[in-house]
Amino acid sequence: MKRLLNDGYDAVEELLEGYVRAHSDVVQLADNERVVVRRSLSETPKVGIVFGGGSGHEPLFLGYVGEGLADAAVIGNVNTSPDPMACYDAVTTVDQGRGCLYIYGNYQGDVLNFDMGAELAAEDGIRVETVLVTDDVYSASDRAERRGVAGDVFVLMAACAVANTGADLDAVKAAAEKANANTYSMGVALSSSTLPVTGKPIFEIGEDDMEVGMGIHGEPGIERKKLEPADAVVDEILGIVLPDMDLKAGEEVALMINGLGGLPLMDQYICYRHAHDMLCAKGVTIAKSMVGNYATSMDMIGMGLTLVRLDDELKGWLNAPFNAPYLKQ
Amino acid sequence: MKRLLNDGYDAVEELLEGYVRAHSDVVQLADNERVVVRRSLSETPKVGIVFGGGSGHEPLFLGYVGEGLADAAVIGNVNTSPDPMACYDAVTTVDQGRGCLYIYGNYQGDVLNFDMGAELAAEDGIRVETVLVTDDVYSASDRAERRGVAGDVFVLMAACAVANTGADLDAVKAAAEKANANTYSMGVALSSSTLPVTGKPIFEIGEDDMEVGMGIHGEPGIERKKLEPADAVVDEILGIVLPDMDLKAGEEVALMINGLGGLPLMDQYICYRHAHDMLCAKGVTIAKSMVGNYATSMDMIGMGLTLVRLDDELKGWLNAPFNAPYLKQ
Repeated sequence: MKRLLNDGYDAVEELLEGYVRAHSDVVQLADNERVVVRRSLSETPKVGIVFGGGSGHEPLFLGYVGEGLADAAVIGNVNTSPDPMACYDAVTTVDQGRGCLYIYGNYQGDVLNFDMGAELAAEDGIRVETVLVTDDVYSASDRAERRGVAGDVFVLMAACAVANTGADLDAVKAAAEKANANTYSMGVALSSSTLPVTGKPIFEIGEDDMEVGMGIHGEPGIERKKLEPADAVVDEILGIVLPDMDLKAGEEVALMINGLGGLPLMDQYICYRHAHDMLCAKGVTIAKSMVGNYATSMDMIGMGLTLVRLDDELKGWLNAPFNAPYLKQ
Repeated sequence: MKRLLNDGYDAVEELLEGYVRAHSDVVQLADNERVVVRRSLSETPKVGIVFGGGSGHEPLFLGYVGEGLADAAVIGNVNTSPDPMACYDAVTTVDQGRGCLYIYGNYQGDVLNFDMGAELAAEDGIRVETVLVTDDVYSASDRAERRGVAGDVFVLMAACAVANTGADLDAVKAAAEKANANTYSMGVALSSSTLPVTGKPIFEIGEDDMEVGMGIHGEPGIERKKLEPADAVVDEILGIVLPDMDLKAGEEVALMINGLGGLPLMDQYICYRHAHDMLCAKGVTIAKSMVGNYATSMDMIGMGLTLVRLDDELKGWLNAPFNAPYLKQ
């Protein structure tokens, strides 16, 4: 697959420079140029929300920095954790005296580096708590060991909705944990992403093949098999996700179809249609729908399905007003 | 390239069904199922805005139906004009007694079919005017003969901003014409889109090649050449667009980098960065920026650059509030 880049080693810096120029009314780079931060923080001091991870998943994470949403995003190299100093600098930049919450997907490198950032902040007397997003159903049977994928966005929304009410750090963390505990995702990849530095794919996959359960960095999935029609792929994902979450008739959910970057919106809505109809047939109410490229793997052709089990509280949080370049509601 | 579809012949119907289920709070299908219409029209009768064209360019056109933006989108098959009855039915569905404006890209099939729709509406006593979008600089030297590409979005915004003030059809049409006359686009394709029915690309292109000036349906461009770095591609486009629009230091523009579907946001922002810097170096002020997949060619890897020469009036129109699924501001 082809990319439109300059020197691949400069891709992340150039991305960030382009991003803050394009959205200069909303965001800017902090003194640490791997930290994208809101141009003006909340007028009323609130818990700071720091989102982040490797780059190559745009609009995740930087696209969700904005009014009412994340206060900062910490950006690593492609598929690589942000460095500890960036994690720390984000906190010192956005802390308003009420502490900060780190929200990021559960990957070993991220955990190490964000934890070091939190320790450095603690030395400054700033309390930082962490909620790891663990929504990728196939990545582990134990929820705590699962990876984070597009569920990041729902966890962020819940935390920010509560932080915006002026709640304290414990309450904001509890909201994020509640959202995460109710979020379930699984994806399928039809192609690899293309790495900027090498110009090469991460893995090879046959012309007629797909990999079910693949992670957004190309982590191996359940099985590689012949590409199936969209409805069959959705059925396969629901066949794993629904039993895992033990979803029952009468329950309410948020449903996201997340494009991994190279999949047309046409295909994404065709997948949405079938997921919608299967859930309705099961007696499940879809109270919120999101379709689009929310958490990508650059040019990877593929799709992830995310379900969030809702109650009135969670539904309220996910429908709160947000105004970031890639999430306005 | 791979797609995630069912029977390719059903792709457009399934796209539309999925779309209106996902966005049922905003849109619905009209009795004619190729017409996506706002769930509730303006409470104060206003000029109806009907947008449309072939499918395969999502989120164009259906993604721009919503509060304050298009009242209806008329949808054809992939890369194919909508049929005349759909064009007519859209008018009868959204007309509030103040007439309607058709806005669509300048393609022969669209002109024929929308014109027939307007004639049928005239027989019902509904006045319909038309503004053809003609922003694709390379497609013809004469503005009136140019094709319409991503500039569709700017022309729509201008027309809707004025329609929302309660202005009459002549004023709304004049606003759309003014926006169109000031809008200039050019694109580059690195790959073909993949047609749903055949599963095949429209054209072949070498592994290291790009085509400069290509249209969003795969219309031939200026030349096919070796793929260049992003900055060089942007320079090449600006080298054609800027002289064509005779842009001078001290002027203000809106700048859009439009992804054609398969190009990562990372690459789009890298292109934006260089375009931004080149325009600033020339003394041009970028008063509005838009980066993302606004008008695609399904999975085509490629990018288009659009510039709109602004005055205070046009700037006001483009910054009006809109609330459609793919354009909220």
